Parts: sequence; C-alpha cells; structure tokens
Amino acid sequence: MTDKFHQPVDAAQVPRFAGHATFMRLPAVADAEGLDIALVGIPWDGGTTNRAGARHGPREVRNYSSLMRSAHHMFGTEPYKVANIADVGDVAVNPIDLMDGLRLIENGISAIVEKGALPLAVGGDHLTTLPVLRAVAKNGPVGLIHFDAHSDTNDTYFGDNRYTHGTPFRRAIEEGLLDPARMVQIGIRGSVYGSDEHAWALKQGVRIIYMEEFVARGALEVMEEARAIVGGHATYVTFDIDSIDPSMAPGTGTPEIGGFTTREAQQLLRMLDGLNLVGADVVEVAPPFDLNGMTSIVGATVMFELLCILARQIERQKNRIAR
Amino acid sequence: MTDKFHQPVDAAQVPRFAGHATFMRLPAVADAEGLDIALVGIPWDGGTTNRAGARHGPREVRNYSSLMRSAHHMFGTEPYKVANIADVGDVAVNPIDLMDGLRLIENGISAIVEKGALPLAVGGDHLTTLPVLRAVAKNGPVGLIHFDAHSDTNDTYFGDNRYTHGTPFRRAIEEGLLDPARMVQIGIRGSVYGSDEHAWALKQGVRIIYMEEFVARGALEVMEEARAIVGGHATYVTFDIDSIDPSMAPGTGTPEIGGFTTREAQQLLRMLDGLNLVGADVVEVAPPFDLNGMTSIVGATVMFELLCILARQIERQKNRIAR
Amino acid sequence: MTDKFHQPVDAAQVPRFAGHATFMRLPAVADAEGLDIALVGIPWDGGTTNRAGARHGPREVRNYSSLMRSAHHMFGTEPYKVANIADVGDVAVNPIDLMDGLRLIENGISAIVEKGALPLAVGGDHLTTLPVLRAVAKNGPVGLIHFDAHSDTNDTYFGDNRYTHGTPFRRAIEEGLLDPARMVQIGIRGSVYGSDEHAWALKQGVRIIYMEEFVARGALEVMEEARAIVGGHATYVTFDIDSIDPSMAPGTGTPEIGGFTTREAQQLLRMLDGLNLVGADVVEVAPPFDLNGMTSIVGATVMFELLCILARQIERQKNRIAR
Amino acid sequence: MTDKFHQPVDAAQVPRFAGHATFMRLPAVADAEGLDIALVGIPWDGGTTNRAGARHGPREVRNYSSLMRSAHHMFGTEPYKVANIADVGDVAVNPIDLMDGLRLIENGISAIVEKGALPLAVGGDHLTTLPVLRAVAKNGPVGLIHFDAHSDTNDTYFGDNRYTHGTPFRRAIEEGLLDPARMVQIGIRGSVYGSDEHAWALKQGVRIIYMEEFVARGALEVMEEARAIVGGHATYVTFDIDSIDPSMAPGTGTPEIGGFTTREAQQLLRMLDGLNLVGADVVEVAPPFDLNGMTSIVGATVMFELLCILARQIERQKNRIAR
Amino acid sequence: MTDKFHQPVDAAQVPRFAGHATFMRLPAVADAEGLDIALVGIPWDGGTTNRAGARHGPREVRNYSSLMRSAHHMFGTEPYKVANIADVGDVAVNPIDLMDGLRLIENGISAIVEKGALPLAVGGDHLTTLPVLRAVAKNGPVGLIHFDAHSDTNDTYFGDNRYTHGTPFRRAIEEGLLDPARMVQIGIRGSVYGSDEHAWALKQGVRIIYMEEFVARGALEVMEEARAIVGGHATYVTFDIDSIDPSMAPGTGTPEIGGFTTREAQQLLRMLDGLNLVGADVVEVAPPFDLNGMTSIVGATVMFELLCILARQIERQKNRIAR
Amino acid sequence: MTDKFHQPVDAAQVPRFAGHATFMRLPAVADAEGLDIALVGIPWDGGTTNRAGARHGPREVRNYSSLMRSAHHMFGTEPYKVANIADVGDVAVNPIDLMDGLRLIENGISAIVEKGALPLAVGGDHLTTLPVLRAVAKNGPVGLIHFDAHSDTNDTYFGDNRYTHGTPFRRAIEEGLLDPARMVQIGIRGSVYGSDEHAWALKQGVRIIYMEEFVARGALEVMEEARAIVGGHATYVTFDIDSIDPSMAPGTGTPEIGGFTTREAQQLLRMLDGLNLVGADVVEVAPPFDLNGMTSIVGATVMFELLCILARQIERQKNRIAR
Repeated sequence: MTDKFHQPVDAAQVPRFAGHATFMRLPAVADAEGLDIALVGIPWDGGTTNRAGARHGPREVRNYSSLMRSAHHMFGTEPYKVANIADVGDVAVNPIDLMDGLRLIENGISAIVEKGALPLAVGGDHLTTLPVLRAVAKNGPVGLIHFDAHSDTNDTYFGDNRYTHGTPFRRAIEEGLLDPARMVQIGIRGSVYGSDEHAWALKQGVRIIYMEEFVARGALEVMEEARAIVGGHATYVTFDIDSIDPSMAPGTGTPEIGGFTTREAQQLLRMLDGLNLVGADVVEVAPPFDLNGMTSIVGATVMFELLCILARQIERQKNRIAR
Repeated sequence: MTDKFHQPVDAAQVPRFAGHATFMRLPAVADAEGLDIALVGIPWDGGTTNRAGARHGPREVRNYSSLMRSAHHMFGTEPYKVANIADVGDVAVNPIDLMDGLRLIENGISAIVEKGALPLAVGGDHLTTLPVLRAVAKNGPVGLIHFDAHSDTNDTYFGDNRYTHGTPFRRAIEEGLLDPARMVQIGIRGSVYGSDEHAWALKQGVRIIYMEEFVARGALEVMEEARAIVGGHATYVTFDIDSIDPSMAPGTGTPEIGGFTTREAQQLLRMLDGLNLVGADVVEVAPPFDLNGMTSIVGATVMFELLCILARQIERQKNRIAR
Repeated sequence: MTDKFHQPVDAAQVPRFAGHATFMRLPAVADAEGLDIALVGIPWDGGTTNRAGARHGPREVRNYSSLMRSAHHMFGTEPYKVANIADVGDVAVNPIDLMDGLRLIENGISAIVEKGALPLAVGGDHLTTLPVLRAVAKNGPVGLIHFDAHSDTNDTYFGDNRYTHGTPFRRAIEEGLLDPARMVQIGIRGSVYGSDEHAWALKQGVRIIYMEEFVARGALEVMEEARAIVGGHATYVTFDIDSIDPSMAPGTGTPEIGGFTTREAQQLLRMLDGLNLVGADVVEVAPPFDLNGMTSIVGATVMFELLCILARQIERQKNRIAR
Repeated sequence: MTDKFHQPVDAAQVPRFAGHATFMRLPAVADAEGLDIALVGIPWDGGTTNRAGARHGPREVRNYSSLMRSAHHMFGTEPYKVANIADVGDVAVNPIDLMDGLRLIENGISAIVEKGALPLAVGGDHLTTLPVLRAVAKNGPVGLIHFDAHSDTNDTYFGDNRYTHGTPFRRAIEEGLLDPARMVQIGIRGSVYGSDEHAWALKQGVRIIYMEEFVARGALEVMEEARAIVGGHATYVTFDIDSIDPSMAPGTGTPEIGGFTTREAQQLLRMLDGLNLVGADVVEVAPPFDLNGMTSIVGATVMFELLCILARQIERQKNRIAR
Repeated sequence: MTDKFHQPVDAAQVPRFAGHATFMRLPAVADAEGLDIALVGIPWDGGTTNRAGARHGPREVRNYSSLMRSAHHMFGTEPYKVANIADVGDVAVNPIDLMDGLRLIENGISAIVEKGALPLAVGGDHLTTLPVLRAVAKNGPVGLIHFDAHSDTNDTYFGDNRYTHGTPFRRAIEEGLLDPARMVQIGIRGSVYGSDEHAWALKQGVRIIYMEEFVARGALEVMEEARAIVGGHATYVTFDIDSIDPSMAPGTGTPEIGGFTTREAQQLLRMLDGLNLVGADVVEVAPPFDLNGMTSIVGATVMFELLCILARQIERQKNRIAR
Repeated sequence: MTDKFHQPVDAAQVPRFAGHATFMRLPAVADAEGLDIALVGIPWDGGTTNRAGARHGPREVRNYSSLMRSAHHMFGTEPYKVANIADVGDVAVNPIDLMDGLRLIENGISAIVEKGALPLAVGGDHLTTLPVLRAVAKNGPVGLIHFDAHSDTNDTYFGDNRYTHGTPFRRAIEEGLLDPARMVQIGIRGSVYGSDEHAWALKQGVRIIYMEEFVARGALEVMEEARAIVGGHATYVTFDIDSIDPSMAPGTGTPEIGGFTTREAQQLLRMLDGLNLVGADVVEVAPPFDLNGMTSIVGATVMFELLCILARQIERQKNRIAR
C-alpha cells in the first residue's frame, strides 16, 4: 500500500539542505483530503505574556525537520509506509487580534478534523491548544496528557483578560473540552505566583506530577499512571517545549531550569503508544530566543516521535479493519 | 542651578557596568513632577505584524545607555546642567489586548505632559506613537518629523484591523493629531505593497523624502526643507530605528537595506536644534533580533542626541524667561 | 493579463512568518513550463577552498525573501503583474563529487533555459556560475557583469585542481562561454596572492574595476562604462555577496573589508536596466557564518532588484511583440 | 506583617519585560536599613586569571531575575511574606586596582551586616567571596559549604600574586575567616595543575567531594555529610556557577564539563534548609560568554533558591522570638 | 626522565589566553620524531553529506585546549611526565578533491606511525577515520571501540558514491582494516533511513549498543562488554562528538537529541584504560555550528581524557621494558 | 633576497583553515633576531574601565589573519619579499597586577627593539601602548598618529588611579615619550565627560581632528595635515579598533557610533606611506564582544595594511643602503 502514500524526499539522493523546507520533507498539500495524519503549523503567539516569538515556530521546525529520517530506530516503525501523511501548511492566523486569532485557528484545525485526519500541530504559544481542542473535542470532552513546566490553568492576566498562554486549560475545562478527571500534567516546576497557584486545577481533579515527583519515580512509573488516568478514551497530547530543560531547548518564552532531558522526553513519548489519540501538538518553540536551531531540532524530533505514535495507531486501526 | 537637578552616576567613580540600569544612569523617579524632560519606556509591540520584540526595547536601551557620558562633544551642551531630567520608568501596558494597550500608553504619557515635562520615549513598536500623539496633541494637531524606512500610513491589515505598526500616522491624521501639511517623512525605502502605496499620504499633503532623494541631496539640504515644513509651531519627532541601516541596527522587526548610516542620523538629528518640540521618541528597537546590543547602543545614542536637542530647547526657554 | 500569472502570498492577509518559505512567497512549481523567469536554488559549495556553507544559501534566502513586497518603490515596477514568475525549487546537486555536481547543475539550469525562461539563481558558491554559464551560453559566448571582491580567474589550487570558486571565470573564458572583451568585474579588492594575480584576466581583455576606482568614480560612471562594455548583446549578471561589505553581509566564506554598501549595490543593480540579460545569480551567501539572517536579507533584496530588472526586460519584450 | 515588607512587582499586572530590572523585581533601596535579607551585587572580576566578564554578572542576573515568581513550589514558602527583602544595589568597586577593590567590597558588605541584614550577593568572580567573608566573619571563623568545579585553594599566580579567583579560600583560612574543619567543597572536577594540587586544602582538614563521588553517592547523602560537617554554627554558602555543567551555564570564565545538572543543584540547595547561615553568594556568572541569558537565568534561579532558604531561616527566627 | 619530554606552557605563569594555540599548549614540532604520542589535526570534511564545517575543528580544538591543565584529577596521571607528547600540526589535505584528500590524510598519519608514535587525531569529519585506519592497520585488521550517534556503515550516497562520512566503517571492514568481530558501536540512536539500516553491520558481527541499551545498563557494564569484545589486541578508538548530546556539543553536522552527557562520556573513556590502543581520534567538531566554543571545549577535554589513557599505556610499556 | 626571508604558508597549497594560527601564517620564531619587522601580541587589558576582553585580541587576530594573502593589491607590495617578518609570539603579561603588567610589556617590546626590528603589535587595551612607547621612545620623544574614537588623555579614574586605557597618552606626554606638538588624533567622537574633557590635550598642543571634521574634509586632506604635523622624524602609529564604526568592529569595549568605515580606514592607513615609523599597533579588539570574528578580520586587515607600510619603509631603507 506504500506507493499510494506521500513519501519524504530521500536524503541519500537529495541532500538535506536542498529543496523546500516542509515538515519532514513531505509534500506540501492543499488540504487534509485523503490524509491519515495532517502536519500543520499554527504560527501565532497572541497569548504570550512575556517573550513572544513562537509565531516563528512552524517555519523553523519545518526547517530543521529536514534532519529527520524515515524510520524509528526503536519501534522499527516506518510511518510513511503505514499512514498517509503530508504537510498541509499553516492555518490562517491574525497576529494583532486575539479573538479573531482563536477563531481562525479553530477553523483551520476543524477543516483537518472534518476530513478525517489526525492533526499533529506545531505552535505557536500554548494558547493555540485551546482552539485546537475546540476543533477536536466537538463530540465531548477529551482526556489530556500534558507535558509542561507550567500548569497553564491560571484565570486572568493584566486586568480581566481571560485568554493568555497561562490560561488555556482552565478555559478548556470551563468550556467542557477537557475532562479534568482524565487530565494529567507532567513536569510542572519552577517558582509560582503563590503557594495556592495550582489549587483550582487540583480541585477540578487534574493530576499534577511535579518534576520532583517525576525524578523520584521515573518515566515508566509516571506514564503508567498517566495511561491509567486517560484510559482508552479519546485523548489529546500537548507537549510544551519548555517542559524540556532550557539547556536543550533554550528557544522558548518562559524557560524554567531543571527540566526533562530529551532522553527522558523520548521515554515519556514512547509510552504514549497504544492510547487512543485524537491529535497532538508541540508548542512554544520560539526561534528568536533559540541558539543555532537547537530547540527546533528538539521540536522536530518530538514531532517525529509523536508522528510515529500516531502512525502506529493508524496502522492498528487499519489492521483491525482489515481483519 | 545645577545642584537642584538630577545627575547621572559618575562613570569615573562608579564603573559603567555597576548599578541599576536606568536611562542614562539617571535617578529613577516616581513621576514627572518637577522634571523638564521625562525619559520614559513604552514596552509594547502589540501592533507588530511580523517580528515582535520591541516590547523588550526599553529594558535594553536602558542597559546600553550606561555607555553615554554627560556632555555633547559638538554642541558642548551638558544637558543635566541645564534641565531637570530623570527616568520615570515604563508606562503601564497590556501585551495581550491591543485597545487596552493604546489606552494605557496614552494615560502614561498624559501623566507626564500634565506635569509640564517633555516626554522622550523609547518604544515599543511604532503603533506606540499613536497614543503618545493623543497625549501631546490635546490642544490641536502638531507637526511631525518622521525618520523611518516605512511611511506607516497604510489603512488596514488582516481583514479590517485598523491599528498596527503600519498604520499609526494614517490614524493620527484622521484623528486630527497631526497636521499633514506639517509632516515630513525621511528615509523611506524598500519594496512596497503596490506602486500606489503612498498615494493616500501624498494626497493628504505629507512630504515623503525617499532614501534615494536623501542620498542625492544630503542631510543639510533635506533638513532645511524639513525645518521649513514644520516651521516654528509645535512639532513631534519620531525616530524609527529601522531608518538606520540593518548592519548598524539589526535588532528590529522590519529591516530594509540601504538605510541611514549612524553618522547621517547624527547629522539629521543635530539639525533639529531650534525647533519647537513637544516630545520625541525612538521606536522599534527589538532586542531579540539584536546582535550584542549593537542596536540598543544606537538607540541609546539617538536618545542622547534627542535629549541634548530637548535640553537646549529648555535652556533657551529658561533664558528667555530669565531675560 | 495579471490573473494568468503566479502571485505571491499577500502579507496584508497572511503574515510574513506564516506559510512555506518559497522565494518571494511565490508558488512552488514543478518546472519552468510557462514561466518568464524561474527562481531557482543551487545548494552547492563543492568549489569552496576555505569556509564552506553556501550550500545552505538557497534555504535561507528563501526564508528571508518573505520580507520582500511586490512593487519596486523607485521603478514603480510590479514584477508579478508583468511576468510569470515562480519558484522552481533547487537543482539536483552532489555535495561530495565535484564533477558530478557541475554536471547536475548544468542539467538543472538547462531544463529552465530550454523552457524559454530566464534563470535567476541563488547559490551556492561561485563555482556554480560555471555550469550555469554552460547552460545559458549554448549559442555562443555571452558578456558578463560581475560584482565581486575577487576576480575568480585563478588557474589551479591544491595541486592541479582546476575547478574551485577561485577559478570559474578563467574556465568559462577557456570554454568559450564568456567573451572576455565583454566582461567587466566591479568591486575587486583585498590582498592578493601576488602582484601579478590579475595579469591573466587583464591579458584576455577583462576590465577590472577595483573598489578604489569605484570609490573615486561612483556607481553612475562605472556602470555607464560597464554598459558600454557589454553593449546590447546577451549578457549574464553575477553578484557575489562578498562584493558587499562584511558588516552588511558577514555570512560569506571569503570576507574582504571595504566593500560596497548595500545602497551602492542598489545603485549599481538599478543601472542594469535596459540591458539584454540571459540570466543572473546571487552567490556565496553562507548562512553558517551569518548573523541573524542579515546576509540572507541582503541576498533576498539583491534578488528582488535583479528580478525587477528581468521583469522589466520581459515587459519590454512583450510590449515590442504586442506592437 | 506582610504589608510592612517590600513586595516585588506583580507580573500578572505588569509584564515581566516592563520596568526597571532590579533583583526579583523588588524595590531598589538606598541601604539595608530595616531589611532581613539584602540582595546585593558585586560587579568585580579583578581576580580573574583567564576570561574576565563576571563584572557584568549582577546587571544580567538582575535582568533575568524578572522571570522569578514569588513562591517556592516545593517548600510553599512565600519569601516576601516572611522577610523584608530588597535590592540594595551594587557595592562600590574598583576595576583596575585589585587591593582597593577588595577593600571596597568588604566595606560594602560590612554596611549590610552592620544593619543586621543577611547578605545574598551576586558576583563577580570568586575572589569577591574573600572580602565578603571578611565582613561576615568578623566575630570568628565560619563554616563553608562551597559548590564549585574548582577548590580555589591555590597559593600564588603570575609570580607571587596571592589574590586571584584561584586562591580565595586559602587566604580565608590563613586569615582565620574560615574554619577548615567546617569546610566542604562539592562538585570539584576537571584537570588539575598537578596531582598534588589539593594537598594543602586536604591537610587543613577541608573535605573535598569530587564530582565522581557526588555521582556515586547522590545529592541526599552528600548533603547529609555536608550538614554534619558544618553543624549548627555560623556558616556561609558560596555557589560558583561553574559547578553547573557548561551546557547549562556556559557564561562563565573557567568551564569544566561534567558538572551538576540544574536539577541536582536544586536538590543540593534545598538541603541547606535549617542550617545557620550568615550569608550566601552566587559567583562567576560572566555574561560576555553567555548564550541568550541562559546562565543568568540559572544564576537568578539559584539566587531564588538561596533566598527561600534564608527567608525560611528568618521565619524560624521570628517564630522563635514570637514564642 | 621528565626533563627530556615536551612540557605545556605553565598557566600559573603565562595566562591561558596568551601565546600560540597549540594542542594542550605543547610545543609545535615538525614531525613525530622522538614522540610517544603525536597530537595531530585533520582539517577536512570532504565526506560530509549535510552540514560541513568539521574542517575548522582542529583550529578551534587547539584554541580551547588552552583550558586543559596537566594532571588527571581521578587517575592522578601527569601525562607530560610519563610520555613525550607534542603537536605535530595538521596533515596535508585537499578540500576539493575527495580521493586526493583521503590519500593525503593516510600519508600524514603514516608518517606518524612510521616514527613509532601513537596518533591522537582531531578531525575533520568521520570519513577521516578511514585513511587513519589505513595508516594504523597496515599489519592487519584492528579492533574498534566506536562512540557515535550513527553507525556510519551505510553503502552509497548520491548515486554510487562510496566515500562519505556515513560509510567509513563499511569501507574499513571491506578493506580488511577492521575486524568486525572486534568492533563495538556505543550510543547509536536517532531516526534511521529504514528499519534495516543496520542489518549489514550486524551481519558482519559488529556489536551495536543503542543509546537505549546504554541507558538501561550503564557505562560500567557496557564498557566491560566492549573491553571483552576488543580484548587485548590492537584496537583503535574513535569518538564522534555527536555521540554527546547536542545541548553539550551543538557544534556538529548531524545532531541527534538524547545523547551521552559529558559525564557519561568521561566514565566511558576512563574505562578504556588498560587496552592495547594503536591510536584514537575525536571527530565531527564543526565550529561554524558551535556556540561560544562549547563543543570545542568538550572536544579538547575528550582529547585530554584519551591522551591520559594513551600516556598510561606508554607508561606501562616503559615500565615493562624497564623491568 | 627573498629566499632568506620567512614566508607565509601558501594558501593555494594548504587551505586557510589548516595549520597553526600565527600572524599572517608566518613562522613562529623565538625572538626578533634577524627580523626587520616583528609581529607581536600583547594579550592584556588590565587598564580597561568597562568591558574587558582585549586580552583575547592577539589570539583571534592571529586566527583570522589566515585570510590575508601575500601582496597588497594597490601598492603592489609583496611584504615578505622585501622584509624579514615573523611572529615572535606574545609578550609576557600579568592579568592581575597592573604595574607588573606594564613592566612586562615594556620588557617584551624592548627585546624586539634591541634586536633592531620594528614592532607591529596587536593589543590588548590601549593602555598597552604606554609601555610600548616606553620601549620605542628610549632616545627621546616620538610623534604619534593616533586613530581612535577617544582622546585617551584623561587624568585619573576610580579615585586617583593614573593608569587606565583612558589615560595612556597623558602619561606618555608627562613621561616625555611623546612630543605633543607632533601628535595628531583622528576620529575622536562620542559623548564626553564634560565640555572641557579635551582641554588638557589641546593645551599641550595635541591636534584633535573630530570625526565631524574628518567627514567634512576627507581622508586625503586630513592625512596631509597629519603628515605635516609629524614630519620626517620618528613617529609611532596607534590604531584603536573603536575608531572604526561599531557595525564593522563590534568587538570592542567602548563602542561609539558614527565611526570610520573600513574603506576610510584603508585610505587613512595607506597615506602613512613614506613616514619614518618606529612601530605601530592595533588595539582594543575584544573577541568576547565580537560577532563571528568580524572585528578580528578588520584587525587583521589593518595589521596587514600597517605591515605593508612598514615593509615599504624597510625596502626604501635597504635601497638607500644599497645605493
């Protein structure tokens, strides 16, 4: 069935520095028609409260995704052989009107979902996940596995502003997009606004696993708990690049020391295998603060790990149908 | 009268790298009470259509203004001996609500103007000049000397959004803050959206001096024309750092090659001497795109040149009163 | 006729940081069929004797060409209204086999020429111009206007190696691709291997205008001479980014201080208008040595200037045919 | 009692990029009067034998301390509610006279100690700790917990020069400021001048825990030993940023690979809780060698961890008095 | 016997920033005559398929090797007291002719081997190890301990090109330079061209220890296996800097996240002690992609660790002879 | 006579990135014996009042001097054919003892002068010129042509400290090393400590040509005046890299906008031809503040221009003797 699927440019024939920079060197297509997985950019950081720049994330993650090859060395999975995957470009955005930005992003992701493809998005700041959830949770609340340094469940900023990259998951719970009982946040750390900053989230039933607990228990044990929390129902995965240590991912707006190593991140991501995912994203890659593309390389690799997880899910589904 | 005025820290006693980074190493004061000139930051880039980052401008211009000394080597002026000058801090801003941002900036500058001080502001993107003009032009339209690579007189962006850093001077003319017959734009260059991009501004009577005309005529002749255009009435000066060549001021959102050299900029600025200024600003210094502070050093030096012009104006006024 | 032509993405609707990075935000097309001008990358630096990196040039010039708008502010030309222009991608290259690399590049450019389009190429190192000339000079030697810090007419390097970025124009003369009597090199400067380094070229009749002569005479006079040298016959234009001063274009392999300002470069380029060009290139943009994209911005702008010159030539030709 | 204490600017109202860059966004005060803890800069690197630049440390640590929030997410401590803390500015220094520099630093810290405040200093190179110890150990030798890649107990450099950043702790022992039996150095590593480089320190009774021993035993066990060594008596804590791995803290003069991760550093620092501290410092942050503020962020976070430890000590003392 | 050996410049007398930058501040000598160990540069990256720059590796590793001192803090070894070591300069190279480059490198290393010295080389890309093996394996195949992110046992690239930095160990096995049964590759990771990419190497008997296996088993256990594989026979050690995590060694052409920490690398390297080595190298340090010399510092330290291992081997041999 | 002289490595045979980094790729020699011109480094910045780093200047100027070739393209001079020139290494320095540093530098330069060679030095901060003058002016005061942004004739700093990089020429006049009537300073600019900052120097008879005067009169006229001032007697040339514009030479401690272009600097330097020079230096190249070696390239080229001037002087002297 491979020959029906889009294939990346072959780096053994065309060097990695050549050609247009699309996600994973896959073809750029007009829309998600016929795709199993749609790679999509969300170049928007309108919710950023401090250092903006994640608007440039999709461009640079595309650029450095040229370094990715076509098979996963541990799973053995060759995603482009088991699923039809392409780069659908960036959703429309509005850099100067926050509410219009949210509307446009939701529209863009909805267009993917309506074609039956799984969205794998690259942000953008973390507020972009809110309109993505609006698009993927149209049939009811979904679960969430959330890798991040920050809980992003605050209420308001700068007066009574309810939409920033510090509030998306509070809004998503309030809007019924997320089931707080099926939410787990992993890697939370750093100084907080007050000793009760996480009280609201905890009260909703969100499970917060601080970095210190992660260090004590390890990726395997933590992910087993996370898998139990979300269970077999529809689940979304959101990966904030600032969950990674700033030495490995300096190009982000709100760095917090003491983060995941990339090795730990890979362990965590590989344990997503077998869940029932409705989409995933990598957010907060902010190239203006990056160093020689280091963070974009991490973002591209996280994206590739997620892509393999989604492709394996597609493969299982196709095998079930085939049986 | 010197001993009544705020003085900068003496770099021959306290090294430049020591101490808090205020504008020109002057005292940080709570408000403009008693000041002749108020140095103020506007850390906001909500109108930026491409590369944000000017929100970080005031912080870094303050940092590098430590390199400035206390006398002008050509004028001989010692500004801190002839005027009372201090750093009044940053105006309040809102990074995620454009209209609230404009309101807060206007309030902040109005508070300075109401104390009788001249504001010398550091942006921020160029949309910040609109609320500054609302504050300084409360008694009627003012003239404008505008150094920039771009005319910033476009109408709308991203649908019908009327407020971006590409539109402030159209809005200011429409609001009656600027008298287009007393407006001159110098250094305009670079590719344009269409061959008629500047038609509206020209129709209002704005004088646009393209870089090519500047090169042909020179700073002296161009500024003589500019001085004639604004005359002796109330005039504002706005200096977009992207008027400078990107090799000298790379830290900005919309670079255009072929800009002013800093030497030319100094020639231009010194020819502002003797006008009747109601305030001035330096905008679009975007540190995330800067290189080792190079652009902030230019910004701080432009600020010092403007400061000397304003101080000389204060000195003349005081002399007139004394006579 | 505009609606038949490819148009760039509209930056007033889609922000510059969004979408795939093609040259000038034009559509990526499969080949030059139907094009008047083909924008093409040559990601190859196999002839580089010191600091490689120009292989990454096309990728980054594409990236920063997002800053270009659609009209020339001095000519008033709107190139995408008068000519059909698109991004045909990169030619095939071979990064580890020099002779195969030269063959592949010639093939790639020949495919454009055979479609009747003018190639506007972005290198790559300056040796890439040799196979380009083999493609565009199939009907006999062409003239050359050559902007560079170096004459690139040396004979051999590292033993008897005849193909490096220091030798392309000697080879091109020897191969009958260039008519030395119709060749002019402008901006040559910097220390040389020996006081007789340029003797061979001068003997062939090449006109070398050192930077010092350029400074003394100015762009207008120098270009009038250059235009007289090449006359109305078929001429190629090659622009080595190291002709620009390293402060403005640091991202290059062989920097020489004392170069053209970008303003001078724009003056020079605009004086190409009206010649009979068979193609043009911008070479030696080496992103690994660049600073925040500064050199790629210059490269993209030089490309836009050349694009306008070529579009105006197309327009004239169409008008002649129409008459 | 909170309302009597200085409070940092609220980042939910004033964005982090706005306002003057003081330590932790706390008020800048004239002296330590009324303070429990005085945050102070020591911008001096006169003892640096190789790569200078730590003189710029306080400025940049202040800058990036804007990222710190007001509560510790593990302790739950809100330091600004339990102790009166402010930024007292930088001590006077002399960048070109080493002995005068040492004298001025001692004076500056003595002024804090005499007001009854605990100094939390940011260097500066490690020689700055010598005059700090002269100020805090006026009543007799104190214990020392010393995190570093280097023992800094060498004797002389460049002839018979006794004061460099490689000698402070030898001098401090000789001067009776430190009790070698209550000294522990943790994280020591890297090539040495000779196999006997640490012989003198070991002979005095200093406990040196090499990085390799730390890796084998872990933070908990090592710190239990360290706590036993210093016991309940007066102890100073000095944290050389080069104890951290250079990938996480590249901005330092004498990097040594194989350092602490920031996560390990946080574990170590939190185990200082409950000791009897007379002050602490973070030294050797050298911004000219830093990358996008990465090291300053680590420095600011280490400072915040130390601040919480000191605030908890103040809180315990106040509770004891209240009882 | 020390006084007969070359000694590095003493940093306690001559600061590290002073003097010519030779490897380890040792004397530059004309050839390997009289040396036990020859430090040699191979400034060549002709086999690089993506991001070139390792040609600049020897220059910058020399520069940062000034930070190395003269004794190993764990072994206690003082290499310059037990072996005669010097910097023999760079081998001749040819940057534009791959096959001539390989020939020249082999000649350069052969000249060292023929003098009876052990070569400790700094590349250069990994293809440089092939001609080094041709020089050191003249008497029959040697064993290999290979630290790398990539197996480098692919067959051809860009058509039928057999010599790239992705193929050296396949060629070396084919040429009989390496005994595949005595080869171990440690740290292999990252996406692969296909799920069977390593099949050829595995079929030859090469032992591949993926990073994931290393993480599970630890350095001690893995190296015990590696030591058993190579046994007491002649063995070469090659250290690709991309085996280290890109956060610690960003300056390399083919970064892969999830790499060794430098601490792990030091553990691995120290376990080479006691083997029978015929030489060693550090390759793929590519300064144009480095950040403030971070990767060169790692490269210099890896070189120092290898130097101590080789010096200890020399010392044992001399002791055996002496006995 | 060429074959008796030291020759640089031939870049057409050995690529520029290969081999040890000596000045101009010349041999490193033990002392100035037999040399006409000695290239020497002075790695010391003990007089720096703000941003140190010039101590690293010689290392990096050596590194980038690899880009220099062997003939001057305007003079036609081939310096290595007419004079015996080599790299004598760095003088001894003391980074932590200012007065010892001055003593060591004087000794180092005296050793060159005593061998009869002309010193061409690379600093180091500008205070290094004072001990150089002590060495070259042993027979009486010399004239000075001084390119700089700053007059460096202040009296004291930080209390009564008389030796900083802001005071060397006051001290040199006081010590009778310089004849103020034969001194000219060119390019002076930037804000000053007070309107009378240059009064002392002017009173001694020093001719100060501000940048503004230079711009008005041009290099030719200014240098004719300068040549008249120093006449045919012994003269020293000192070139502070901060005389160049910071966009071209950002790597320096005290940048001032509006500086010389490198083209102007070359014009100025070439007009030194024919004077009677006793030595020359390039100072204040501070690599920690540099950008991709840009400033070191300028420094190396200025050095090459000075080298050609000195070689031409040697050639004239030899011709006179021969006649």
